[in-house]
Amino acid sequence: MVPHLTTSLTGPLQELERIVLDQRPEIERWFRTQWLEHEVPFYASVDLRNSGFKLAPVDTNLFPGGFNNLNPEFLPLCVHAAMSAVQRICPDTRRFLLVPENHTRNLNYLQNVAVLRRILEGAGFEVRIGSLIPELAGPMEVETSAGEKLLLEPLQRRGNRVGVEGFDPCAILNNNDLSAGIPAILRGIEQPVVPPLVAGWSTRRKSHHFHVYDRVAEDFAKLIGIDPWVINPAFSQCGKVNFSEKEGEDCLAANVEFVLNEVREKYAQYNITEQPFCIVKADAGTYGMGIMTVKSVDDVRNLNRKTRNKMSVIKEGQPVHEVIIQEGVYTFESVDGAVAEPVVYMMDHFVVGGFYRVHTERGVDENLNSPGAKFAPLAFETNCHTPDCAGKPGDPPNRFYTYGVVARLANLAAALEVEELVERDAAPEARAANA
Amino acid sequence: MVPHLTTSLTGPLQELERIVLDQRPEIERWFRTQWLEHEVPFYASVDLRNSGFKLAPVDTNLFPGGFNNLNPEFLPLCVHAAMSAVQRICPDTRRFLLVPENHTRNLNYLQNVAVLRRILEGAGFEVRIGSLIPELAGPMEVETSAGEKLLLEPLQRRGNRVGVEGFDPCAILNNNDLSAGIPAILRGIEQPVVPPLVAGWSTRRKSHHFHVYDRVAEDFAKLIGIDPWVINPAFSQCGKVNFSEKEGEDCLAANVEFVLNEVREKYAQYNITEQPFCIVKADAGTYGMGIMTVKSVDDVRNLNRKTRNKMSVIKEGQPVHEVIIQEGVYTFESVDGAVAEPVVYMMDHFVVGGFYRVHTERGVDENLNSPGAKFAPLAFETNCHTPDCAGKPGDPPNRFYTYGVVARLANLAAALEVEELVERDAAPEARAANA
Repeated sequence: MVPHLTTSLTGPLQELERIVLDQRPEIERWFRTQWLEHEVPFYASVDLRNSGFKLAPVDTNLFPGGFNNLNPEFLPLCVHAAMSAVQRICPDTRRFLLVPENHTRNLNYLQNVAVLRRILEGAGFEVRIGSLIPELAGPMEVETSAGEKLLLEPLQRRGNRVGVEGFDPCAILNNNDLSAGIPAILRGIEQPVVPPLVAGWSTRRKSHHFHVYDRVAEDFAKLIGIDPWVINPAFSQCGKVNFSEKEGEDCLAANVEFVLNEVREKYAQYNITEQPFCIVKADAGTYGMGIMTVKSVDDVRNLNRKTRNKMSVIKEGQPVHEVIIQEGVYTFESVDGAVAEPVVYMMDHFVVGGFYRVHTERGVDENLNSPGAKFAPLAFETNCHTPDCAGKPGDPPNRFYTYGVVARLANLAAALEVEELVERDAAPEARAANA
Repeated sequence: MVPHLTTSLTGPLQELERIVLDQRPEIERWFRTQWLEHEVPFYASVDLRNSGFKLAPVDTNLFPGGFNNLNPEFLPLCVHAAMSAVQRICPDTRRFLLVPENHTRNLNYLQNVAVLRRILEGAGFEVRIGSLIPELAGPMEVETSAGEKLLLEPLQRRGNRVGVEGFDPCAILNNNDLSAGIPAILRGIEQPVVPPLVAGWSTRRKSHHFHVYDRVAEDFAKLIGIDPWVINPAFSQCGKVNFSEKEGEDCLAANVEFVLNEVREKYAQYNITEQPFCIVKADAGTYGMGIMTVKSVDDVRNLNRKTRNKMSVIKEGQPVHEVIIQEGVYTFESVDGAVAEPVVYMMDHFVVGGFYRVHTERGVDENLNSPGAKFAPLAFETNCHTPDCAGKPGDPPNRFYTYGVVARLANLAAALEVEELVERDAAPEARAANA
C-alpha cells in the first residue's frame, strides 16, 4: 500500500521525477565519485516532505532509531550494507559494541536496538549492548515491543578502551545521539566509534547541515538541470534566543520574515496558491522536541506561555538558545485521509528501506515527529534502487527511487558536515577546549 | 521448500555446520581481511555437492548463466552488490556493455542475460548488449523464456575501444566464457573488462582452480579447526589425453587409482560405507560437457566409442587433451525423490542467492549440469547471510549460510587463480606469445 499524493502531479515535482529517472546513469555516477572523496556515514535516516511541487529533506538523523519500522524483507539489504561498511571502516573487527539511547521504557526504540543487533550479527559480528545509563549497576534485561530480550550492560572503561564485562569490542556503533554531550567514558578511546562522537547533537547543528546541503543541492541541481529550490528548503537561523525570557524575538521575527519572503517569491514563480509557512526548530534538537509551525511574523511575536515552555527545553533537558527557521514543506501525501511523511533509511552507500509516518491527528503543515505523538509506520513496499523506468512518474518504485536520491543528497551533506566537524575537533584550539 | 537431506546428520557435516555457525565472527573477519588483499570476482557461481558427510565445491563458474533461476525477491541484493562492485572497479562508469554467450536459441540463457541487464540498470547504468556472434550483421531482437525482449547488437571496434552502434561503453561485463579463445575484437582494449579476459576457458583450467582451492581450504580448515577434506574434493590431472585416439589411458588409469585410493582412506577413517567414485572432466570444460563418472580403473580402460566421442570434444568444438580427475561427492539432497545439487551465486563480496538443480533422471553420483539435461531450478528460499544461530544445524538458513561460506571459499580461490592468470599474462614471454 502506497500513500496517495493528494495533489495533482502536474507541477515541478513530476518534472523532477521524470528528470531523475532519465538521468539515472549520470546521477549514480555522480554519487559514486562523491563517495570516492567523502566517507559515507555508517547509517542515517532522512525525513522528507513531499508537497507535489517540492520534495525536500527536512531533517537528517545520524543516529536513526526506527530500523524496526522497515519492511523486514529488506533485512538482508541492511546486512549486506553493514558488511560493506565494516569492510571499509574496520575490516579486522569481530566484536561490536552497540551503544543505545538511555530509554528503557520506549519499547519501540528497544525493538530498533534489537533489529540493529540482528543486522550486525547478520554481518557476522559478536554484539553486546553497552549502556550509558548512569545508575545502571549491573546487566539489566529489558523486553522490546516485539517481545525480544535485550541485555543492557554498563559500559566499562579500561585504559583507552571501552567494553562491557568480559567483552573487549573492536569497534563501537553508537545509536545514542549524545544530546547531553560526549560522555567522559567515550572520550579519547582507541577503538573506532561510528558515527564519530562529534556527530552527536552536543556539537552538531541543523543549520550547519543545511548550509552544507545548500552546496550539495546546488551541485546536484546543476548536474541534472533543475531549480535547486525544488529539493531544498530555504532556511535561516538565530543564535541567541531565550524563549522563557522572551529574548531574541526580533531576530526570530526578522528571520521568519526573510524565509517567508523567499517562499512567497518561489510560490509566485510556480503559481502555487498554498500559504507559505515555516518551521522554527531548536538547532541542536531531536526527537521532534522544540518545534513549532509559524505562518506569519505575528506568530512569533505573540507566543503564549505554553509554546514558550515547549520551545525552551529539549531532550536531556538541554536549554534552547539557537534555532533554525526552515521553510515549511507541505505534506500532500496521505493514507486514508491521514497525513503521511516519508522517512528514508540508509546504511553505507545504500538506501536500505523506509517507511511513512502516518498521522491522523496532524495537519499538512505540522511536524509529524513529535514527542508522544502516535504515528503508524507504513513500511515502503518496494526497495529504492530498482525504479521501473518504463513506468510513469508517481509509480511506487519510481517515487521511492526519487525519494532515495533526495535522501542520499542529504546523506552526502551529512558526510561533508561530519568531515568538517572532525576537522574542527582536530584543530589545536578545539583540542585545548576539550582537554 | 527446501530439499531433504536423505542422510543422517550425524557425520562430520553436522559438525561442520555447528563449527561454522559457532565461529561466524572469526570466519567473517577472515573473509574481510582476505578481500583486502585480493580482488573479488565481479560475479561467480559455485556448484556444491552435499553428501551429508562432505560439503564441497565441484565447479566454479566465473561467467554465471543462471541469474534467472534466483529468487526474484533477492534482486535488490544483486543490485546493491553490483553497485558495490562498480564503486571499487570503475566508479566513473555510466554505460555498461554486456557481452553474452552466442546462444540465441537457449531461451533460459537469454533470460539470464535479461536479469543481468536489469541488475546493471538497477545499479544505475545504461546497458546495451554487444554480441560476439560472427555472422551478426545488424541488431537482432530475441525473446527470452520469460517473454522479455533483448536487442543483440554486433560488437564494433574503434581504435582501442569496443562498443555497439552509437554507444561507447565505459566498461564491459563479460558473460561469455571465451571457450573458443579470446576474440581479437576484445584484445588490448582500453575499457575495463570484468572478469578479465584471461579468466575465460581458453586460459583457465579447473585443475589450477582446485590447486589454489587446496591452499584456501587448508587455511580455512586450520582457522576453524576441521579436516580440510570435509570441504575439499581430492583431485589429480592428466595433461595429454586423446579419447578418440585412445591416447593417455595409462595416465588416466593411474590418476583415477590415486584419487580413488585417497577417497577410500578417508571413507575408512570416517566409517563411510558408500562406494568411492570420481568424475573425469575436461580441464577447460564447461556447460557440463566432457564429463564422466568413474568407479574403478576398469571404467577408463574400457571406454566404448560413444563415451570416447562424448569426452573428446567440448563447447565450441574444442578438443579435449587435459582432464581433471576429481573425487566424486555424492549428492544426498533430494526433492520429492529427485536428486538436488545446490548452486550458489555471488556478486562482489556477497552471496546474492542460489538454487537447486533438481534432476529426476540422474543418480546421486552423476553430474547434474549436462547438455540438454533438464533440471528444475528451485530457488533458495532464504538468503545466505542471516543464519539463525539459535536454530539447529540443517535448518534452512543455517544450511544456506554454510553453503555460502563454502561457496565463498571457492570464490576466494577463483580470485587468487585470476590474479595468477593476470600476472602470467603480464609476464614478458606471455606478452610476446600473445602479440
